[in-house]
Amino acid sequence: MPQQSRPGRIVRAPEHFVSASLQQDITQHGVGASDSPRRDFLRKSFLGAAAALAAGVASRARAADGAAGDDAILTPQPWATTLGQPVAAHPYGQPSPFEKNLVRRESPGLTRVSAASVSFAPLQGFFGIITPNGLHFERHHQGWQDIDPARHRLMINGLVKAPRVYTMDDLMRLPAVSRMHFIECGANTGMEWGNVAVPTVQYTHGMLSCCEFTGVPLKVLLDDAGADFKRGRYLLAEGGDGSGMTRTIAMALADEIIVAWGMNGEMLRPENGYPLRLVVPGVQGVSWVKWLRRLELGDQPWNTKDETVHYVDMMPDGMLRQYTSIQECKSVITTPSGGQQLVGRGFYNISGLAWSGRGRVKRVDVSVDGGRNWRTARLETPVLSKCLTRFNLDWVWDGSPAILQSRAIDETGYVQPRLAQLRAVRGARSIYHNNAIQSWQVADGGEVSNVHVD
Amino acid sequence: MPQQSRPGRIVRAPEHFVSASLQQDITQHGVGASDSPRRDFLRKSFLGAAAALAAGVASRARAADGAAGDDAILTPQPWATTLGQPVAAHPYGQPSPFEKNLVRRESPGLTRVSAASVSFAPLQGFFGIITPNGLHFERHHQGWQDIDPARHRLMINGLVKAPRVYTMDDLMRLPAVSRMHFIECGANTGMEWGNVAVPTVQYTHGMLSCCEFTGVPLKVLLDDAGADFKRGRYLLAEGGDGSGMTRTIAMALADEIIVAWGMNGEMLRPENGYPLRLVVPGVQGVSWVKWLRRLELGDQPWNTKDETVHYVDMMPDGMLRQYTSIQECKSVITTPSGGQQLVGRGFYNISGLAWSGRGRVKRVDVSVDGGRNWRTARLETPVLSKCLTRFNLDWVWDGSPAILQSRAIDETGYVQPRLAQLRAVRGARSIYHNNAIQSWQVADGGEVSNVHVD
Repeated sequence: MPQQSRPGRIVRAPEHFVSASLQQDITQHGVGASDSPRRDFLRKSFLGAAAALAAGVASRARAADGAAGDDAILTPQPWATTLGQPVAAHPYGQPSPFEKNLVRRESPGLTRVSAASVSFAPLQGFFGIITPNGLHFERHHQGWQDIDPARHRLMINGLVKAPRVYTMDDLMRLPAVSRMHFIECGANTGMEWGNVAVPTVQYTHGMLSCCEFTGVPLKVLLDDAGADFKRGRYLLAEGGDGSGMTRTIAMALADEIIVAWGMNGEMLRPENGYPLRLVVPGVQGVSWVKWLRRLELGDQPWNTKDETVHYVDMMPDGMLRQYTSIQECKSVITTPSGGQQLVGRGFYNISGLAWSGRGRVKRVDVSVDGGRNWRTARLETPVLSKCLTRFNLDWVWDGSPAILQSRAIDETGYVQPRLAQLRAVRGARSIYHNNAIQSWQVADGGEVSNVHVD
Repeated sequence: MPQQSRPGRIVRAPEHFVSASLQQDITQHGVGASDSPRRDFLRKSFLGAAAALAAGVASRARAADGAAGDDAILTPQPWATTLGQPVAAHPYGQPSPFEKNLVRRESPGLTRVSAASVSFAPLQGFFGIITPNGLHFERHHQGWQDIDPARHRLMINGLVKAPRVYTMDDLMRLPAVSRMHFIECGANTGMEWGNVAVPTVQYTHGMLSCCEFTGVPLKVLLDDAGADFKRGRYLLAEGGDGSGMTRTIAMALADEIIVAWGMNGEMLRPENGYPLRLVVPGVQGVSWVKWLRRLELGDQPWNTKDETVHYVDMMPDGMLRQYTSIQECKSVITTPSGGQQLVGRGFYNISGLAWSGRGRVKRVDVSVDGGRNWRTARLETPVLSKCLTRFNLDWVWDGSPAILQSRAIDETGYVQPRLAQLRAVRGARSIYHNNAIQSWQVADGGEVSNVHVD
């Protein structure tokens, strides 16, 4: 698995410079005096500043990367002295060429066929909570295709008075809603059940993305078809690809389900279900059926292949647990994370993601000593239900070995478990639904690696 | 100016079908009985459904586009019978080829040089509030370039104890925040001051975008440099391109300013300031200086060319008003909008965007009769400060001519003005800061066009 790096994203430390006056600032403002969430922007930023100064991150016009700081700012760069590219040079824009290594990646050998595989999202390079559409993770069962939206149909049938067939034009005239939600594959972090420590956060947690979805509420369509809500307790969702993907969804979840065409402001991408997918907030990704072609209302679960052979949890007694669809509360530190390199002691911004299929994230704690002591991280806004939440925490690394962990707590009071706690209940032969606390070990040389801490 | 259209996005109506039982539902649930904001998902979706049914949007397995609905759903499509593309076929993904017409576009002839021009975002095709990075509007003064982040520097100087020069690595170690904000060019909707009615919403309002931005709070850097906050009442921001772009920003705004590298989860795009831009929430885009290379703290405004010759408001008496930077409360209906075509009477989802540089949008009213009667639209969540807000409203078109308008009200109580109200104060010779109510005329044939209504 190749290591990712890109200019400006490697975690490394410059030389240190702390003036006497800045040391005084730090003393006056009591860095680290508070562990409580600091949402007030001013206070937060000031404390942050003081912490940064304590570590001496900034320096006065100093040399860096072999180029003199003075020279770099005083000598005109080529882009300051020449005419640039015109507007709409790219009618649909692209990332900078300097970011070309930050891409989604297949894990070689994970499956035998790349059309029935996974590409992982590069979480180590993400900011905030929105996943850029070009870097949304992929999980296909028979590959993706460029479906012609004019030829695509959605059927509603089963326990309804009047079965329906909708064109995309029909659907897009209906009342639309927009909501931000995370999507996580049920198999995310699956390798960590055993003693395999996958090297980077892209491969441990990269079957995770978060978008603003737009579409018509499922209930609107069911109402339109005259659904029998008394007998109709389960929904079958069927995809339009050749994999025969069908999933049973409990109607208890129906209120929040969206039949979606929009993803971060534009139409769904082909590999994410264009032109239509199901959005089932809080539930594992396999139920968010892509290229959605049919919804059938029924009175019992269907027990399809993708809910009997796959996506079941092997329990310690060898029994298989079915229909565990909700993604429980979970978090991961994305920076610093496995494969990255701290260059020297000093200030670092520990940053990561937290989420819960049960609602809002209430709190995220961070430990730098393998779980003995915890500090409460700052949550970026907005904090939304069944959506990623970005957390940040100031950290001054003293150069000695450290083990970084994050622990999320959701609004139901559920606390993300330690790996040992999870294994005690679930064993170590599962593939799916691993929401254990992730540990990143920082060696005294600054190398960060994946380590299993019970 | 070419018309945009794409499959599934043209506003057109299918044939109608309303069963007796559905009519009964409509009667029972009192469609249109409430004008209050309906945030409750269940109630909202149900009312939405009822309204849709009233208009008879859905039909039972009926013909559409010349293809029989039954056939389309029952006959296997090619994508259901063949092997698709593998994962990571595009390591950085692209939109569907069927969406190729939805791009940002230059307005031919607007400026003499395309490197000092505008490309407009296709608002008519947007959903929700997030602007996909590939479709973010552009406004350059000397074009854009691929800046090497390893060679980029940010200087902090002026009324500070210790001037600083930061590398990108320095900055990205500092405490980071993430916030969602709109960005609007001060000249957006500028053509509408006169009697020019630009044909589409892409060209009337397309210098507008909205992203989740990530970066270090300005105050952290100013603290680091030992800023003199008593004397330092103004900030000069300087861009790294060759246009000599410099803007004065009042320090009263400083608390919310972010020195940003992240945009919707990834690094800024080159044409949007990679690797560093200023984010000045609520303020016109020109102050969000791109390719940011220097911030200078001073005790008075600088009166640079871009705040004396450009970006000034011509008042009725011929005087030029300077430093009007806040983007006042504004809204626009994006669907249906100019250049689109309603095909037949029936249900339509009226959808649009609202925003205010003063804070949150409190309410959006929509009129279909040129401002005589107003109904309150549904606001999608989240509703955030100085961020776009998506609104939606059910509408059953009876086939007669209509004039669609939206009117936003922000949390300060400010009400978006009519064009006549704005002209009474500001005259008609301005370019900048036009936040008047936009009117779209629907002809009896269903053609939608831009029309000026006082």
